[in-house]
Amino acid sequence: MQEQNKELSVTVGRLSEESSYKQLFHSYRDGEAMPSEEQLKKIVVLCRAILFPGYCGNARISKQTICYHTGVNVETLHSLLTSQIYTGLCFSDLECETCPKERIAAQAEKLSEAFIETLPELRRILATDAEATYHNDPAAKNAGEIIFCYPGFRAVVNYRIAHQLYLLEVPFIPRMITEMAHSETGIDIHPGAVIGDHFTIDHGTDMVIGETSVIGNHVRIFQGVSLAGEKSLPDEHGHIVRGMPRHPVLEDYVTVYSNATLWGRIRIGRGATICGNVWVTRDVRADETVRQSCFIENK
Amino acid sequence: MQEQNKELSVTVGRLSEESSYKQLFHSYRDGEAMPSEEQLKKIVVLCRAILFPGYCGNARISKQTICYHTGVNVETLHSLLTSQIYTGLCFSDLECETCPKERIAAQAEKLSEAFIETLPELRRILATDAEATYHNDPAAKNAGEIIFCYPGFRAVVNYRIAHQLYLLEVPFIPRMITEMAHSETGIDIHPGAVIGDHFTIDHGTDMVIGETSVIGNHVRIFQGVSLAGEKSLPDEHGHIVRGMPRHPVLEDYVTVYSNATLWGRIRIGRGATICGNVWVTRDVRADETVRQSCFIENK
Amino acid sequence: MQEQNKELSVTVGRLSEESSYKQLFHSYRDGEAMPSEEQLKKIVVLCRAILFPGYCGNARISKQTICYHTGVNVETLHSLLTSQIYTGLCFSDLECETCPKERIAAQAEKLSEAFIETLPELRRILATDAEATYHNDPAAKNAGEIIFCYPGFRAVVNYRIAHQLYLLEVPFIPRMITEMAHSETGIDIHPGAVIGDHFTIDHGTDMVIGETSVIGNHVRIFQGVSLAGEKSLPDEHGHIVRGMPRHPVLEDYVTVYSNATLWGRIRIGRGATICGNVWVTRDVRADETVRQSCFIENK
Amino acid sequence: MQEQNKELSVTVGRLSEESSYKQLFHSYRDGEAMPSEEQLKKIVVLCRAILFPGYCGNARISKQTICYHTGVNVETLHSLLTSQIYTGLCFSDLECETCPKERIAAQAEKLSEAFIETLPELRRILATDAEATYHNDPAAKNAGEIIFCYPGFRAVVNYRIAHQLYLLEVPFIPRMITEMAHSETGIDIHPGAVIGDHFTIDHGTDMVIGETSVIGNHVRIFQGVSLAGEKSLPDEHGHIVRGMPRHPVLEDYVTVYSNATLWGRIRIGRGATICGNVWVTRDVRADETVRQSCFIENK
Amino acid sequence: MQEQNKELSVTVGRLSEESSYKQLFHSYRDGEAMPSEEQLKKIVVLCRAILFPGYCGNARISKQTICYHTGVNVETLHSLLTSQIYTGLCFSDLECETCPKERIAAQAEKLSEAFIETLPELRRILATDAEATYHNDPAAKNAGEIIFCYPGFRAVVNYRIAHQLYLLEVPFIPRMITEMAHSETGIDIHPGAVIGDHFTIDHGTDMVIGETSVIGNHVRIFQGVSLAGEKSLPDEHGHIVRGMPRHPVLEDYVTVYSNATLWGRIRIGRGATICGNVWVTRDVRADETVRQSCFIENK
Amino acid sequence: MQEQNKELSVTVGRLSEESSYKQLFHSYRDGEAMPSEEQLKKIVVLCRAILFPGYCGNARISKQTICYHTGVNVETLHSLLTSQIYTGLCFSDLECETCPKERIAAQAEKLSEAFIETLPELRRILATDAEATYHNDPAAKNAGEIIFCYPGFRAVVNYRIAHQLYLLEVPFIPRMITEMAHSETGIDIHPGAVIGDHFTIDHGTDMVIGETSVIGNHVRIFQGVSLAGEKSLPDEHGHIVRGMPRHPVLEDYVTVYSNATLWGRIRIGRGATICGNVWVTRDVRADETVRQSCFIENK
Repeated sequence: MQEQNKELSVTVGRLSEESSYKQLFHSYRDGEAMPSEEQLKKIVVLCRAILFPGYCGNARISKQTICYHTGVNVETLHSLLTSQIYTGLCFSDLECETCPKERIAAQAEKLSEAFIETLPELRRILATDAEATYHNDPAAKNAGEIIFCYPGFRAVVNYRIAHQLYLLEVPFIPRMITEMAHSETGIDIHPGAVIGDHFTIDHGTDMVIGETSVIGNHVRIFQGVSLAGEKSLPDEHGHIVRGMPRHPVLEDYVTVYSNATLWGRIRIGRGATICGNVWVTRDVRADETVRQSCFIENK
Repeated sequence: MQEQNKELSVTVGRLSEESSYKQLFHSYRDGEAMPSEEQLKKIVVLCRAILFPGYCGNARISKQTICYHTGVNVETLHSLLTSQIYTGLCFSDLECETCPKERIAAQAEKLSEAFIETLPELRRILATDAEATYHNDPAAKNAGEIIFCYPGFRAVVNYRIAHQLYLLEVPFIPRMITEMAHSETGIDIHPGAVIGDHFTIDHGTDMVIGETSVIGNHVRIFQGVSLAGEKSLPDEHGHIVRGMPRHPVLEDYVTVYSNATLWGRIRIGRGATICGNVWVTRDVRADETVRQSCFIENK
Repeated sequence: MQEQNKELSVTVGRLSEESSYKQLFHSYRDGEAMPSEEQLKKIVVLCRAILFPGYCGNARISKQTICYHTGVNVETLHSLLTSQIYTGLCFSDLECETCPKERIAAQAEKLSEAFIETLPELRRILATDAEATYHNDPAAKNAGEIIFCYPGFRAVVNYRIAHQLYLLEVPFIPRMITEMAHSETGIDIHPGAVIGDHFTIDHGTDMVIGETSVIGNHVRIFQGVSLAGEKSLPDEHGHIVRGMPRHPVLEDYVTVYSNATLWGRIRIGRGATICGNVWVTRDVRADETVRQSCFIENK
Repeated sequence: MQEQNKELSVTVGRLSEESSYKQLFHSYRDGEAMPSEEQLKKIVVLCRAILFPGYCGNARISKQTICYHTGVNVETLHSLLTSQIYTGLCFSDLECETCPKERIAAQAEKLSEAFIETLPELRRILATDAEATYHNDPAAKNAGEIIFCYPGFRAVVNYRIAHQLYLLEVPFIPRMITEMAHSETGIDIHPGAVIGDHFTIDHGTDMVIGETSVIGNHVRIFQGVSLAGEKSLPDEHGHIVRGMPRHPVLEDYVTVYSNATLWGRIRIGRGATICGNVWVTRDVRADETVRQSCFIENK
Repeated sequence: MQEQNKELSVTVGRLSEESSYKQLFHSYRDGEAMPSEEQLKKIVVLCRAILFPGYCGNARISKQTICYHTGVNVETLHSLLTSQIYTGLCFSDLECETCPKERIAAQAEKLSEAFIETLPELRRILATDAEATYHNDPAAKNAGEIIFCYPGFRAVVNYRIAHQLYLLEVPFIPRMITEMAHSETGIDIHPGAVIGDHFTIDHGTDMVIGETSVIGNHVRIFQGVSLAGEKSLPDEHGHIVRGMPRHPVLEDYVTVYSNATLWGRIRIGRGATICGNVWVTRDVRADETVRQSCFIENK
Repeated sequence: MQEQNKELSVTVGRLSEESSYKQLFHSYRDGEAMPSEEQLKKIVVLCRAILFPGYCGNARISKQTICYHTGVNVETLHSLLTSQIYTGLCFSDLECETCPKERIAAQAEKLSEAFIETLPELRRILATDAEATYHNDPAAKNAGEIIFCYPGFRAVVNYRIAHQLYLLEVPFIPRMITEMAHSETGIDIHPGAVIGDHFTIDHGTDMVIGETSVIGNHVRIFQGVSLAGEKSLPDEHGHIVRGMPRHPVLEDYVTVYSNATLWGRIRIGRGATICGNVWVTRDVRADETVRQSCFIENK
């Protein structure tokens, strides 16, 4: 045991040398916690409880009591979200050390309130998504099934929450919220993407919708589809340029079947159909259909 | 703080208006809980403990004591499953309000018993799946590894449990059980699909097997494969028709390689091979091979 | 109730017959637990806390105190890992019954120490992965975001841990560690694969990198890509041959876009580009590009 | 192992013989759970949250939002209490097997409502207890300290809740609620005791107030005091007579110091003082003081 | 922060000096855990479930299924108890370092089996305790109430379990089991005490029954009673002599009322009554009654 | 259901009226949590781990690694304690609303550091308590048993921690820490009491040591003993006077046997013995013994 401890001690020593850890070390504002996945999960659960009353928790909710529940849930949401936005601001902001804590805390509170004010609109647009999903999926028995257990709808809920926070320029938190849905459902929608109403994801695993994608209304996308970004060219100093539009634009009523990849800032016209497994790198006009070629051989 | 509360109160008010929530509100039988993902997880764990003795929990199980453990596990399973089927019946049944609770409870108990009687047959067919997986995967060290940690096998276990419940016309619960496997493994098998014995899923992430798919014996499918449903045509009233056969039929000894999509009610003949990344929308005859065409260019 | 119990008892009896369970029964060394997913999760969390100080847990860590934290974490890791390796050795070793427990325990302790000594090198190579990911992804805001929430990076961390244990011939545990990342991220990298430095996974869901794959430095791979194994031919006795090289070799600076499948022991030359959705079964020379053919039709 | 299992099996057999367990076996209504200590703890926590707003949970509660919180708490309390009263009725009622479940459930719901209607009165009387405790204890800093952490006050809260349920003839549950306080504080007040307002318990550990005790207003009792019951005489059939008055009566303004025992149906007059460590078996008149005799010796 | 860390570091240094901790440091057998209160709680719960079928857990237990439940419970008890006895042997035995682990493990297994064989007898004697308690307490509604929630009965169950382990010379564990009851109920019965059948504890808080007490059958004791040990005289080397008889002997049918203290190796004759609050240091003959003297004064 | 909701709503309304709750409402600093029993439990566990290395947690601790563990534990303690002291300051301070948060936070940090600096001295004095307990109790097998499971020693640890915080004028938290021990062990020592070294509590349940008690060195006290406070006389305005000396003073080498009550600001001389069950209200000189008188009668 003594000998072994000595060998481990040498490793401990090597791992504690600054040259070893300096690239992977997080030096954050003294005493402030990191954003917490666990807290963000609670935040998403609260949003779902507010948006879809009666589906979350086991409480008996009725027209008489909905206002009690909404009141408590909104209040709790406000408090949790404020504290997570605060940690996100501290984590991401390099100037954070010099800015007084109070100013950051006040900003977090304001952002949290601004988000909560968008909840009625979020509910309205999610109702169109649920409706479109029901109309498009012959296997769906009723709307409750979609809200309660369709992973595609779950991922859209997380995305729409995260997108509102992204528009408010909350750092870091939006990405964590979409990553939670990514891990749970395999659907990876960047919070920066812009997506219209009546949006349907079918099955959805391994779907990627990149940061600068733009999607119109009544669009339907299947599992394995990527709206992928063109390789960014470095600027004159050899640094990659961040934030340029580099993902596809899909107009209204487009359908993209499973495992298709749309690559770069291309435009898919209104009502076009992209069949499964194609690799599309050029614009597609309205109502066109893109298909893969394959051949059959006998053994 | 006072001011802020006022703004939040306005939002609470808007969210509590009936016009806002009516489409997304769940009004269920008074006092009855929703089906619970947590309880369903316990149910699947119990089924696994019964089907594969010695792999679940840390208990020392021996030939002398297997009957004690099976007895207690079956009893607990019966009790949990009865209560979840009961909530599923309440959640899905629109006439539920008028039907006496007792009749629903008695029906739930009978369905739970009927399911438990299929466990010996479930064990027999899962043994063929484990055996086929072992024979097909050169990376597998032994059968234990497959039962204990192959995600493909896990998903098939959930599917086979869910399919039995689907055949008994238990609502809602089967879909939740396959969605649990979907979230965990990325493999989405609809409980309505019909799948023969000696079935192998390799890796499996992003696999979709739709509601009306029919799969023979000794079939092997890789990750990213979709057995996808044709778009259902609306009936004369403009409503989508639900439940029609619209997914592929795979005969015995078919192999489908990664990321291929089979689309619509097509038939893939005995022993046919579908290579990776193709989009197949027509029948394939026995022993044929379907390949994608691609080309190579120099930079 | 009495009647029902009788029917359940019959099922209990059938499930307790040896002929029914013998293929799916795990008869392991008396009193030894199975490897535990929960313990392995703690092990990965500890490795992350050691490798990336300040990102894990909420503790305030500073240059003065890093050595306390590293000391305690390394010690805890050593103890947990020793016990999991021990259970892995018991679970997988068929001769285990005859070998004295002490010898297995001593072997487990030595393997755990040997793993811990590789942690400084693991940290060095992961720093190159984080750097490459940051340079390749225009959506990344800073290195912290990558370490803290990129699923691709998470999966690579698990793989690199598992690969070290695989090189030490620890059974079973490495596969469980990569399967944990598989379930969480949809990225399935076999612990036996060999992967160089500056490795980037983009999005990554539904990626498969098979057991005998060899990947050079500065390689970049997108979601849905499979490095798949050729079907192993059976030997003269009709048994499948295990452990032969059957997955692709990717040289330095190769890029593989989304949903492409590389199949069998083929070689992709330095700097080659594989576009999305292709199925590649032959060698590709340096700097070549492989593309899919598709066609467009008007409705 | 085999041998050992055989010996254990013999013990299992002996313990499963009906003659062995028949006296200690609980055969209750099929499928109904026992009352749950865990649920009753939640019920007490909810009552405290309703009665003392702002002391329970960490929620920010204000005059604007108190009605949301009270609404949700009352609703949750109603639901939990109904279900626990239901199990209590099933557990205690011997005729329960023949009485339809619905009637018991309806009765449980009515009793739960009746209890909730007493909450405003409970709050009023507990305010007098808190006030009296503050006035009597020079160590108390403020009323908050008493509500938040005085064990004597905690025990009185549980007693007053339990007493209301006792008056409603709810079986079993009241005793469990006072036993929870007994275990936590060492103070054992039977739910059947009658206690006036402005009641103070000082320290309180090892206090016993028996079933038929009657205590006036402004009474103060210290730790270790017992209001004990006379031995009940058997009736002519040799059975003990249950429910007869057999504990002391304390009039207003009585003080009982530590470790005194008052035994049997005696009456302690208004304003009397019982000093510590005495054993009192006869009536004490108003304003009298009872003291122990002791003597001192030199070693 | 830097400065503060320095001060804390000084304290860390002082606390890490061997001279500071050497008296309070536990140096135990490498890698072996301490006995665990949590595990011992599970052991007591399992014993209760075996001894009083139907009272523990929510499982539906019937004459048909009692043997399944008893079988699984006995097996789990055996495994948990073996491992706790093992840690107890390691913790207490000073020669432990030199004795091979295997021999200790085998001894632990044998002791666990020996304990389990006493369970039928434990059940028999506890049935007499429950019966006596019911006959003595007019407030008891039925035997179920006593088994399910009387703290006195709970403490006796823990004592009787602990006493069997004490007779088997299991170190340390018996005391922990009675201390658990002590903390929960305020009743402190040393596992070494010898107690006959039909034993009743009324209320019980603050009761102490010392190590060498001997109690006959049909004895009844109230809250606050101490059977206390005489001060042990040191031996000729000035060391205290451990294990000598120094607590009271109570013959059959003795009653001791609340807060009485019996001190030293005295004998209380058959049928004697000790009234409350007395301090008894001499023998009491059969059927005698001991009372305190007190006097009354007017203010 | 509708009807019932209406009745509950009326109760909700009554409970939400300010006149109803104003006396029992806690209006605390916006957004600040209450002190948390759960956090305080962690703080006590950390103190125990630091003071008695090797007894807490299962970690293998050795002379080589004790400094890692102490370092991490001290740091964690500092952080938790700072935050609890902060909530305590907010809870108790009426001027808190006007005082800036930062100043309170800085004060909390300083108090936490000051406490940590007393840990070496706390360890020294607790070693004398453990030693004295071992010498006084013939049933004790070794010092480990006392540290690990004697409730009297546990309560003294909590008291000594709380007393240091009391001396630093930390509000509220000290009382909560001693109340935690009170609930667990039945021993209630006020944090303001002054207690010398080599202090022994035997059994201890239902012991009370009041706020202004003063206890010398080498004192030994048994279960059920109260050092009780004289009734405080009100001042000229009719308000009770808080903080005056009103509890007993015990000089060195005093022994107090079980259930004795010492009442008021009396002085018990060096080496005096107070026998069990007496009520002492006057000074006792050095080496004197106080005994109760009782008499015996035959039935």
